[in-house]
Amino acid sequence: MFDFRITARAGRARNGLLPTPHGLVHTPLFMPVGTLGSVKGISPQEIRDIGSQIVLANTYHLLLRPGPQRVKALGGLHRFAAYSGPWLTDSGGFQVMSLGHLRRISEEGVVFQSHINGDLIELSPEKSVAVQEALGADIIMAFDECPPYPASREYMKESIERTLRWLERCFKAKTRPDQALFAIAQGGIDLELRRISAEATVAFDAPGFAIGGLAVGEPKEAMYPAVELSTRILPESKPRYLMGVGHPEDLVASVALGIDMFDCVYPTRTGRFGYALVAEGRMNLKLTRYLDDPRPIDPECDCYACRHFSRAYLSHLIRAEEMLGLRMVSLHNLRYLHRLMEQARSAIAEKRYGEFARDFARRRFGQEI
Amino acid sequence: MFDFRITARAGRARNGLLPTPHGLVHTPLFMPVGTLGSVKGISPQEIRDIGSQIVLANTYHLLLRPGPQRVKALGGLHRFAAYSGPWLTDSGGFQVMSLGHLRRISEEGVVFQSHINGDLIELSPEKSVAVQEALGADIIMAFDECPPYPASREYMKESIERTLRWLERCFKAKTRPDQALFAIAQGGIDLELRRISAEATVAFDAPGFAIGGLAVGEPKEAMYPAVELSTRILPESKPRYLMGVGHPEDLVASVALGIDMFDCVYPTRTGRFGYALVAEGRMNLKLTRYLDDPRPIDPECDCYACRHFSRAYLSHLIRAEEMLGLRMVSLHNLRYLHRLMEQARSAIAEKRYGEFARDFARRRFGQEI
Ligand SMILES: [Zn+2]
Ligand SMILES: [Zn+2]
Repeated sequence: MFDFRITARAGRARNGLLPTPHGLVHTPLFMPVGTLGSVKGISPQEIRDIGSQIVLANTYHLLLRPGPQRVKALGGLHRFAAYSGPWLTDSGGFQVMSLGHLRRISEEGVVFQSHINGDLIELSPEKSVAVQEALGADIIMAFDECPPYPASREYMKESIERTLRWLERCFKAKTRPDQALFAIAQGGIDLELRRISAEATVAFDAPGFAIGGLAVGEPKEAMYPAVELSTRILPESKPRYLMGVGHPEDLVASVALGIDMFDCVYPTRTGRFGYALVAEGRMNLKLTRYLDDPRPIDPECDCYACRHFSRAYLSHLIRAEEMLGLRMVSLHNLRYLHRLMEQARSAIAEKRYGEFARDFARRRFGQEI
Repeated sequence: MFDFRITARAGRARNGLLPTPHGLVHTPLFMPVGTLGSVKGISPQEIRDIGSQIVLANTYHLLLRPGPQRVKALGGLHRFAAYSGPWLTDSGGFQVMSLGHLRRISEEGVVFQSHINGDLIELSPEKSVAVQEALGADIIMAFDECPPYPASREYMKESIERTLRWLERCFKAKTRPDQALFAIAQGGIDLELRRISAEATVAFDAPGFAIGGLAVGEPKEAMYPAVELSTRILPESKPRYLMGVGHPEDLVASVALGIDMFDCVYPTRTGRFGYALVAEGRMNLKLTRYLDDPRPIDPECDCYACRHFSRAYLSHLIRAEEMLGLRMVSLHNLRYLHRLMEQARSAIAEKRYGEFARDFARRRFGQEI
């Protein structure tokens, strides 16, 4: 289980197979975010229909409600949320920083105030692993600190060292053999700290490695060198997961650097704002011109929305804030990213990833729509 | 087309077949409300899957946005909203009173202020028919005045007479032979006015007759005599549509009186508030007890929600205001009413409607859940 196998390469890009207790997944892949155990508005059947492979759920949110013991008693995420494919849970580290009212960070862990009811809650490496074992995802993530951007070099250094000590505690705390614990390298955009963190992290023989602390507000030019450096250090033989990245152009560029997994709320969130992802960028369905446009969002797309609805109808629904519109644009956006990764896998298998990436960039940046 | 045929009777309850340009429908039936051309959160495929037959859309709302000419240019409601089964549009009369800021009511029609942008808009019998012809539903409704409850007898009398004059103008204005124009009898809960209105309305040889102006806030004890009287006057040979009624117990009781069609936002609206319709009444999924309940909403229900999700999961989603929860409870509630009407049709066919209604009442009122 979790023995990652690389099946094709094109430059540094690679296709892989990752066996999990709930099915074999094909990388590179994008994971939809089901924050509270539900990808906003999308049913488990639709998750399968659009070609999702792994669904991500947030430990922070599920810890606050409905609580891990409740999810466990109801059969874990797979049964609770009625999606029997693979799940991944994050550790809660990122959300504590971004959503909780952080009260104290110490060697032991963090104390934060719930954004729901103000309760004081502790999260530590041991507690995060225990919660993630109760939730029962196939892949669980190490409890890390994700410092905000910008952070001082001094603070960042302290933070990556603490995260490494927490990583050791996570591995010690882990008891379930049917779950894979992925380690997370941090270091922001400081390449020296990235190197220190990545090298120390790979000393742990994890079944997968993640790059955390990017896409948190830093300039894009600064993100890529950090990704590039990290993929040189993280082992070839293990899946590499770039956390929180979901813009199509970042997926295409990062796969070229050897990234295998992505997650982001971007496709569903931007969909709820009425933006549809298309080859040329984002289509703002709220624009008046779309109210009379009988074409589907994307004639090449095979999603339910594109097979049934015009831009005109979706534009009408989005303007009126009708639930079906939000649901359909989110569905299309997820399908768009899944198709993009399917096309990337084909290109890698046929050793034409460079050409694929150039074609993508030509359509993406060649014109505005 | 629109030749209603009665296929079975049990007392005054009857089963009927109504051919429309977009398919044959079986009565008695409940029509989901797709206000803006979309049943909130539900896709056309799901509309079919749960056994909906006719979808209702609101002329008032579609007049304001996206506008009837736009819907017409995009192929009418059937193509615009991608539901190719039968549609029914109301006339706008009811919504003008309840939603618009009514400015003037005269012999000519009404002038109201849009609740969206404050525009002054006129609606008259001729304009309502023209808008409904552009929208292209299979069944369109006469433009009527639906007086609020309570209204003075004097005003009500004036109103039903004006509505009768408007009815004549609707029939004169109608040009599309592929649409059926249903007439609406008014009269509130005043039985003498009900009789006057119904008798004068049936003088028009409409392909169907509706009972309007009920379920607008009057006590239930007052509604039934008005329904009962109306069904005695409205012709046996034409479908009878009780507008705006959707509580399960009202459907069961009204079918016994000879009603064939219903519509209401109740199942979707109450679903969005977290209430699931079950044989025993409404299940408030926000109650804490459901957070640990592994059973489906209704083990007898065949909807997607009941086949896949526990009360616990749905309760969790509803509390967190997750779109999937609102969508699934709405879906279940619609399926509940469709199943109820399917069971009613079977009972009528087998001449045991009285027994069916008694069983329904026993479960509905016998216990609280
Ligand atoms: Zn699509
Ligand atoms: Zn159900």
